[in-house]
Amino acid sequence: MHTHTEILSLVRDALAAQTFSDRRPAGLYDPIRYVLSLGGKRIRPVLTLLAHEAFGEQPHTIINQALGLEVYHNYTLLHDDLMDRADVRRGRPTVHKQWNDNAAILSGDTMLVLAYRLMAQGLAPNRLAPVLDLFTETALEIGEGQQMDMEFETRTDVAEDEYVEMIRLKTSVLLACAARMGALVAGASDTDQRRMYAFGERLGLAFQLQDDLLDVYGDFATFGKQPGGDIACNKKTYLLINALRLATPDGRAALNRWLDMETFDRQEKFVAVRALYDQAGVCTLCEQRIAKHFDEARAELDAVGLPAERKHELWAFALSLMGRKV
Amino acid sequence: MHTHTEILSLVRDALAAQTFSDRRPAGLYDPIRYVLSLGGKRIRPVLTLLAHEAFGEQPHTIINQALGLEVYHNYTLLHDDLMDRADVRRGRPTVHKQWNDNAAILSGDTMLVLAYRLMAQGLAPNRLAPVLDLFTETALEIGEGQQMDMEFETRTDVAEDEYVEMIRLKTSVLLACAARMGALVAGASDTDQRRMYAFGERLGLAFQLQDDLLDVYGDFATFGKQPGGDIACNKKTYLLINALRLATPDGRAALNRWLDMETFDRQEKFVAVRALYDQAGVCTLCEQRIAKHFDEARAELDAVGLPAERKHELWAFALSLMGRKV
Repeated sequence: MHTHTEILSLVRDALAAQTFSDRRPAGLYDPIRYVLSLGGKRIRPVLTLLAHEAFGEQPHTIINQALGLEVYHNYTLLHDDLMDRADVRRGRPTVHKQWNDNAAILSGDTMLVLAYRLMAQGLAPNRLAPVLDLFTETALEIGEGQQMDMEFETRTDVAEDEYVEMIRLKTSVLLACAARMGALVAGASDTDQRRMYAFGERLGLAFQLQDDLLDVYGDFATFGKQPGGDIACNKKTYLLINALRLATPDGRAALNRWLDMETFDRQEKFVAVRALYDQAGVCTLCEQRIAKHFDEARAELDAVGLPAERKHELWAFALSLMGRKV
Repeated sequence: MHTHTEILSLVRDALAAQTFSDRRPAGLYDPIRYVLSLGGKRIRPVLTLLAHEAFGEQPHTIINQALGLEVYHNYTLLHDDLMDRADVRRGRPTVHKQWNDNAAILSGDTMLVLAYRLMAQGLAPNRLAPVLDLFTETALEIGEGQQMDMEFETRTDVAEDEYVEMIRLKTSVLLACAARMGALVAGASDTDQRRMYAFGERLGLAFQLQDDLLDVYGDFATFGKQPGGDIACNKKTYLLINALRLATPDGRAALNRWLDMETFDRQEKFVAVRALYDQAGVCTLCEQRIAKHFDEARAELDAVGLPAERKHELWAFALSLMGRKV
């Protein structure tokens, strides 16, 4: 069996070989090549390949599907960045900044088609329909999660459960799909496929909530980007929703003043809002919820009907995702 | 066998039953329901069902794929209208006008996923891979055609062949795919599938060139929309490209003056440019090219290995598309 770092190299090499050199015009495929060359942790294909190998199958029989998930993920980033008017991704201009809005729309659309092309490539005939069903349902849910996220921007009454459902759809179901797809193509039982799905889903929730937390309490080294983005744009995260709920009347009033302020010093707002989060105790609350979902992920993986040693690398990868040591 | 008008009713009923009532949030699916309810000639699914029935199969075994092509086509209209900043489609506000740009991006994306869902539904296992291959290659080509079309806007040197290749990709290959898919799912030979593809492709070229022609020489009744749109926005159609090539030096200078004019009376420009087209003889040239492709379509259909009576309704439909009588 391969380690997750070995699998990551394999994914990077296979992705680099996707040059679309047989397709024209360059104006359509250049932004796609650009997006796919920006790097990233390639979490979804690595998870697919690790899950697949846990069930005893070699990477090559599912590499196209693993790459399909990565191309799909990068298409969502491309279109989400356009919809959010985000100018930078992984330290580089986003496609609508480097080219223009229409290039972002059309190249993203083509990436979604390319993701489906990879998804359908090289599978045993009896695997094709279930793989497509899983991928399509996941893609619909992710669109629904993005829609909820956009709708939350103009709402002031987003409840904790709604928020968690939104991140489940927008983020977790793709990890769930990745883990299940590995099991599915390797011929795992339906029960084990469901457990692998739940493992990915719970891991995804823990991962996204930790992302929320690191945006407030992390540093550039652990977070991989500049913290404070969520507070600057009043993003309704787990922390903000709970701070508004749990703050004292004075704390809530202070928080609302910062939320309503149209011009502010970013660092000053960041420090002030973080202090209000601390007063409301939401950091601890978030850590508890992360631990809960991470424990659930562990329990789902433990329940998968494979010897412990076959699941070791999957868990090592889950730990590394959360920035923890084995 | 059904007539093409009977098939159209069947398509309309089946499309009306696609309500996505099990999906949320409404903010994502409302624009999709809106777009699909705007009507249209449903050319692609009708062609698929007619082709399928010509090879002896009943509509119900391919209805999902036929609807998938229609949902796909409407997704391209939605995103193309956004990219072209077109405000009206079929007499109603486009999605980015009725909602906003982000609704148009995300609802369109979801329509593409829904098209793939339909494409994969209810097929015999041995048909799934070839149907997906055909659809995916077609979808990539249509994106390439749209990119070429956008690139042509800022170019002044578009050649006739390049233009025809662009409309082949942007318009014809979907009719070709529709015709071939019907044959494929009905179990036609590879040779007959290729002929059906070529039939749809040639018909698509004739149809699009006729659309160019009607925008200049048609009236609201035959064209189905207000003529003159292409001339108003300097669209590089078959007529304009050839007029620039074939005009006298004086004619070309006059044409270029109209093309460079930033403010103009729409009707005045329309009449003047049409007169220059007439001088250059491009109406006749376009009619000849339409006839050529229509004849090619006929020859491809004639070569399909089926008794003439099984192909009668397909040809009746081709004639009706071109506004001609049987």
